[in-house]
Amino acid sequence: MKDVAARAGVGLKTVSRVVNGEAGVTADTERRVQEAIEALGFRRNDSARVLRKGRTASVGLVLEDLADPFYGPLSRAVEEVARAHGALLINGSSAEDPDREQELALALCARRVDGLIVIPAGADHRYLEPEMRAGIATVFVDRPAGRIDADVVLSDSFGGARAGVAHLIAHGHRRIGFIGDQPRIHTAVERLRGYRAAMEDAELAVDDAWVSLGSTEPRRVREALAAMLSGPNPVTAVFAGNNRVTVTAVRELAGREGPVAFVGFDDIELADLLGITVIAQDAAALGRTAAERLFRRLDGVDDAPARTVLDTVLIPRGSGEIPPAQEVSAQGRRPR
Amino acid sequence: MKDVAARAGVGLKTVSRVVNGEAGVTADTERRVQEAIEALGFRRNDSARVLRKGRTASVGLVLEDLADPFYGPLSRAVEEVARAHGALLINGSSAEDPDREQELALALCARRVDGLIVIPAGADHRYLEPEMRAGIATVFVDRPAGRIDADVVLSDSFGGARAGVAHLIAHGHRRIGFIGDQPRIHTAVERLRGYRAAMEDAELAVDDAWVSLGSTEPRRVREALAAMLSGPNPVTAVFAGNNRVTVTAVRELAGREGPVAFVGFDDIELADLLGITVIAQDAAALGRTAAERLFRRLDGVDDAPARTVLDTVLIPRGSGEIPPAQEVSAQGRRPR
Repeated sequence: MKDVAARAGVGLKTVSRVVNGEAGVTADTERRVQEAIEALGFRRNDSARVLRKGRTASVGLVLEDLADPFYGPLSRAVEEVARAHGALLINGSSAEDPDREQELALALCARRVDGLIVIPAGADHRYLEPEMRAGIATVFVDRPAGRIDADVVLSDSFGGARAGVAHLIAHGHRRIGFIGDQPRIHTAVERLRGYRAAMEDAELAVDDAWVSLGSTEPRRVREALAAMLSGPNPVTAVFAGNNRVTVTAVRELAGREGPVAFVGFDDIELADLLGITVIAQDAAALGRTAAERLFRRLDGVDDAPARTVLDTVLIPRGSGEIPPAQEVSAQGRRPR
Repeated sequence: MKDVAARAGVGLKTVSRVVNGEAGVTADTERRVQEAIEALGFRRNDSARVLRKGRTASVGLVLEDLADPFYGPLSRAVEEVARAHGALLINGSSAEDPDREQELALALCARRVDGLIVIPAGADHRYLEPEMRAGIATVFVDRPAGRIDADVVLSDSFGGARAGVAHLIAHGHRRIGFIGDQPRIHTAVERLRGYRAAMEDAELAVDDAWVSLGSTEPRRVREALAAMLSGPNPVTAVFAGNNRVTVTAVRELAGREGPVAFVGFDDIELADLLGITVIAQDAAALGRTAAERLFRRLDGVDDAPARTVLDTVLIPRGSGEIPPAQEVSAQGRRPR
């Protein structure tokens, strides 16, 4: 749009008026702007949103799980940015299935969304390249894009998990368990990497029996927890890889004899009342940052794709500050 | 489709094969089916889903708030039914704004969804009549449609609130407060009506100072709660009109001196650990029932619009079984 304005010898506002068919532009000015647009081959992705008229602008959001409360504030933040830009938000869910993600993303493109925000389930997004070349701005959030160059907005999963596990180590724990989501999920692997880094920083060996990645179904989490809390070398503390694991783990630990320290990745509602120490991501900031980047693209900003990583915050509330059972015992008190 | 099959002298499966362009139908049979379709003027709403080919079927869901965890299981249940029918689900949110609801619902129709499930923000849905006449099956869920005749799936807000307040009365409470959502929201009004009915059933007068409807923002709920817990005639128990009110009320009550009994409409995650007594709706059943009704319509079922009301369940967990402070005192114990 800047080039059009310069070539036509008018301001940006005038170009905007012409492409939007607004009043207040003389016939001569309008002709000059139109000529400049044609001369420059004003591409659709330079300003997709303002060029295509006659209907409401819209952006699509491909979620991973409609029932995970983590995505609520993220979706709402995207919606608020979209609304501030006069655009509708249309969502759908991949239900953590790469084929479904592709089907949904392409269906949203076919329904002519102007831009797309994707929380990827899959690891290969080359299927989106033709859409992106055709001008559909695309930003990935929560997890990176696979095999394509695109804007990405992430939380610091590695650093957050490392800080959470270091917190448990600082409270005296040496045998710490990690329960995470499925190993094909980027954030699960990054958080496990953070766990291993914190253990290594403290020169603590990790017993294979202390690490469990898999489904976040309650049954799987209960079994993983029971296994690492029993056996010859049981853990005294547990780090949970996300909020779904936390909910089950906290419920199980509440029903157990003896204290087990706990830190979870992701804040959850009423964790303050339950005294659950967490590594909190700012889900709303993830959504807002991704949406703002998308609309910058739709407004014609054409710089190289960027990777933005948002910090996490450790919120101590009690569960992560419990000393190991043995230490309590050594001080003359008995484990409950 | 039944009429087409009868007229062509073939089975339903054959009609389905013809309209879906599947193999296994002779040219003669195909011609007879096509003639029957033309003769009967096979309307789009008789089988919109199977007639329009060349793209994925889709249904739209107009939500009220993307960040409210109540809608997570509802949305996921709709998605599961849609997937079982080979259709994509596309969501959007009205953010509790009637204009936004209309804009979004019509935008989804313009993007050619086959059917629409609406959690209404507004009270007048006549704007959807042309779309419904054009064959877009529409089902309302959680709140009824306004000024049109349509399928509706609701929870028993009135009966649930009445049972919850009766539970508090059965535990000795006479002065019970009600904090609900905004009075233009159908469920808020129904639950208040349930509260009043339970009080009347027990021949208890309701002080105006005990009832507060309004925004579910934490600050508003805190102020409403503080007001009804102070003054000359303070309540000894509180009934919350939905999960957003519950979260703030429970947090406030936890920080207070002296016991206040509490029952909330809607279950919330980890309410079991916090001992919160609730009237639980089955959010997944609401979504599933609405979606199944929608797909029956899309499969050509053409009976009169129905209103389905799902039962709620009282789950006692401690907070609703606390006796009034005075009764404790009268028994020789002091209120904490």
